[in-house]
Amino acid sequence: MVAEERVRSSFARQGLMETLGATLVRVAPGAVEIALRPGPGVSQQHGFVHAGAISAIADSAAGYAALSLMPAGTGVLTTEFKINLLAPAAGERIVARGRVVKAGRTLTLAQSEVFAETAGQEKLIALLTATLMAVRGREGVSD
Amino acid sequence: MVAEERVRSSFARQGLMETLGATLVRVAPGAVEIALRPGPGVSQQHGFVHAGAISAIADSAAGYAALSLMPAGTGVLTTEFKINLLAPAAGERIVARGRVVKAGRTLTLAQSEVFAETAGQEKLIALLTATLMAVRGREGVSD
Amino acid sequence: MVAEERVRSSFARQGLMETLGATLVRVAPGAVEIALRPGPGVSQQHGFVHAGAISAIADSAAGYAALSLMPAGTGVLTTEFKINLLAPAAGERIVARGRVVKAGRTLTLAQSEVFAETAGQEKLIALLTATLMAVRGREGVSD
Amino acid sequence: MVAEERVRSSFARQGLMETLGATLVRVAPGAVEIALRPGPGVSQQHGFVHAGAISAIADSAAGYAALSLMPAGTGVLTTEFKINLLAPAAGERIVARGRVVKAGRTLTLAQSEVFAETAGQEKLIALLTATLMAVRGREGVSD
Repeated sequence: MVAEERVRSSFARQGLMETLGATLVRVAPGAVEIALRPGPGVSQQHGFVHAGAISAIADSAAGYAALSLMPAGTGVLTTEFKINLLAPAAGERIVARGRVVKAGRTLTLAQSEVFAETAGQEKLIALLTATLMAVRGREGVSD
Repeated sequence: MVAEERVRSSFARQGLMETLGATLVRVAPGAVEIALRPGPGVSQQHGFVHAGAISAIADSAAGYAALSLMPAGTGVLTTEFKINLLAPAAGERIVARGRVVKAGRTLTLAQSEVFAETAGQEKLIALLTATLMAVRGREGVSD
Repeated sequence: MVAEERVRSSFARQGLMETLGATLVRVAPGAVEIALRPGPGVSQQHGFVHAGAISAIADSAAGYAALSLMPAGTGVLTTEFKINLLAPAAGERIVARGRVVKAGRTLTLAQSEVFAETAGQEKLIALLTATLMAVRGREGVSD
Repeated sequence: MVAEERVRSSFARQGLMETLGATLVRVAPGAVEIALRPGPGVSQQHGFVHAGAISAIADSAAGYAALSLMPAGTGVLTTEFKINLLAPAAGERIVARGRVVKAGRTLTLAQSEVFAETAGQEKLIALLTATLMAVRGREGVSD
């Protein structure tokens, strides 16, 4: 199965992405884009998109960017991430763009930039850096 | 409104918490506990609870721990957080325990420890550190 | 005083940079480069450059990138940073390249990439993300 | 060689610690304390201790706390850390107290709290969280 198909198949099994209404927009080698529509179901107390929902799509975009460069049969787990939230998340669409910074055999570093789109304009609202671990031969953890 | 009521009222307006099925377990001054039941709707591709869902309850627990020490009329926003995921999140219940490390007039540092509970045993699965910003006099952002 | 001069003057007052033998290589609006020579005085126990020395130049490069965009009379303090160390730091020269990701009135987000140079080749060895706070009217804290 | 001796021997080979004038105050299983005297040689531009020097002792305290629980012959490398700087670092002495949060075979999570001491009073000025990697059988990397 080519990398793009593996990413799409894995994404379809992420129940949280469906719960949040997130969609997989683009998959390229080392680069993945995931989008989310703001709304009451993903909001925090002031009506902005919750930092947890922003983190969820940004982490998944980074993780799938990493997975897209790994050999078939490899699974990926996030071991840590850091996110800076630069502006309240509001707009018509939120999009997280993940890309690999450095791919390693076991550990990969990836970043996601998150943008809010309003009236055709994009605004950077968050930056996430994640360490992803490749997992092989562990029951229940593969692509 | 006393701090506990303000936290409970604010939590009830976090649409994402309802979407995830998260519940507010405990509120004390500077300490808040939020729980989540593992299940398909909050899972990642291997069936573990998604790092984004773990982050969402851990971030909220840290944020409300901070809010519980702030004067009435103050809102709270997360400006950044870091999370280390120590073990795959599985079990009967996931619980995030947030506490304030240092409260400041504008910026508060808080941490959340996240535990997975199985058969009465708790296992530490994640540690989050967050910076929370107090917001006053900004339209749409109050407790 | 133009921004470059302010950065150079401030750098000259950072005693730690002199102690580490670090040099200010380049200053441009929103982008600053600081270099370090590996050696026993900046090493950890295996002879690689210590993560603390890497962090020091990467943090300063990010901080001065931020300061270079701030008005005269403003001081800058780091409020938090995260660094991923991607490979042991060894080589002929270590160079940290800081750039501003998003400049704000009070908080600026900046990143530094750190490279090790050996025989004309560069290798990415670390990535730092920092939040810098602009400080005005506080005694003892200006550029 | 018992764990304490291994830590002391390794610390003595960290050239950066000598350069900074840092001292190893205490070693216990899973807990290590390192201190630093403020002064021009470790300062930033306003005369406070530089975030890089704070990070260096906090990272070393976390790393040695991890090493103290590892079997003989194992080396330790920092793979990432995050530090929040809560107050400008000034006082008579700066002390970093590292402790292990979760020890693993390959990865260990540790935290360091950093305090500034003035006139017998301690003030929390920074909190660092680090991931340490155990390294075995790699040339040049052992305790």
